[in-house]
Amino acid sequence: MNICTYSYEEYLHLVKSFHGNLAPGLIIGGFIVDLAMKHLPEGEFFDAISETTVCLPDAVQILTPCTIGNGWLSIVNFGRFAVTLYEKYTGKGVRVFLDTKKLDAWPEVRDWYLKKKKKNEQNYELLMAQIKEAGHGLLSVQRVQVEPEKVHRKKMGPVGVCPVCGEAYPLKDGASCRNCQGETPYSDVVSVSVLK
Amino acid sequence: MNICTYSYEEYLHLVKSFHGNLAPGLIIGGFIVDLAMKHLPEGEFFDAISETTVCLPDAVQILTPCTIGNGWLSIVNFGRFAVTLYEKYTGKGVRVFLDTKKLDAWPEVRDWYLKKKKKNEQNYELLMAQIKEAGHGLLSVQRVQVEPEKVHRKKMGPVGVCPVCGEAYPLKDGASCRNCQGETPYSDVVSVSVLK
Repeated sequence: MNICTYSYEEYLHLVKSFHGNLAPGLIIGGFIVDLAMKHLPEGEFFDAISETTVCLPDAVQILTPCTIGNGWLSIVNFGRFAVTLYEKYTGKGVRVFLDTKKLDAWPEVRDWYLKKKKKNEQNYELLMAQIKEAGHGLLSVQRVQVEPEKVHRKKMGPVGVCPVCGEAYPLKDGASCRNCQGETPYSDVVSVSVLK
Repeated sequence: MNICTYSYEEYLHLVKSFHGNLAPGLIIGGFIVDLAMKHLPEGEFFDAISETTVCLPDAVQILTPCTIGNGWLSIVNFGRFAVTLYEKYTGKGVRVFLDTKKLDAWPEVRDWYLKKKKKNEQNYELLMAQIKEAGHGLLSVQRVQVEPEKVHRKKMGPVGVCPVCGEAYPLKDGASCRNCQGETPYSDVVSVSVLK
């Protein structure tokens, strides 16, 4: 049993190294990306969509060339456990999702996924064993037509210097940067002198 | 000259492998994360903020344990070229940013960063050489107090099955999932039968 070009054990190792822990969702995510890769439509350049922020983006980043920083991976925060790979120009794609109709054969996965058990009631070993045994059996596949402009990262456009903080920012955001317009997550900022 | 625990050349290799190409912003991003790590406040667990979606999130994901999928990396889309690392409970942090006041010593970096030259007018070799030579010299450091609740990923909360698509989704989103409420990026969806 492989996950893309890796053995199952190699994939677990990559997950631990990149993600920090063997999250069940990321193991299922490996099977999701693997199944999507096996059903790619024709084409050369594929972009990715993760329909949740949790775990799945890391499966995409580990197994495909698509990352958040290069813009080939988009996240739409639907909270659905699904990944779509699509040809970047035509939008023709394949979507693979965790199918709730297939969960009853794997009760530990079902109870974890639908949050029917608290964390301390879950049997992690059994959960991981069922995920491995189920593999693609938890998943279903759809052909989808993506409207790329709905998910693609917007171009930054012309750059200016914010009159408040003095840093460069996209002029399309307004007369000052979004931080200085009040969206800042910082309640206090103090400059530090750094020795060269 | 090192970037965190890697030599400069090792870091370039990691960038190419993860991000796909040697983007100038990701090389500067390496220096940003490196300088932030050298100024960490006291504490054990650090989360990260990237203030842009472009390139910088990948520097964080390559060099720290923080990823999009594990929730320790947050992105605030200010379009500012800055990374903050902060203690996850107290919010005490260090912010490192590309300082526009330091750009004049590095004209090729300045013209690239402020978009004063079109892509075909840029000298990539010179740009990369100036970035390497400048290193931390392009950057400034601030002590910041982060309000973690403004950037942390929200908890998913209770899960239900969407009456429209039949997939699991966070009940806090409403009576159906956000895709089925009309935010979908898909104009067409067709189920596929998969041979086991």
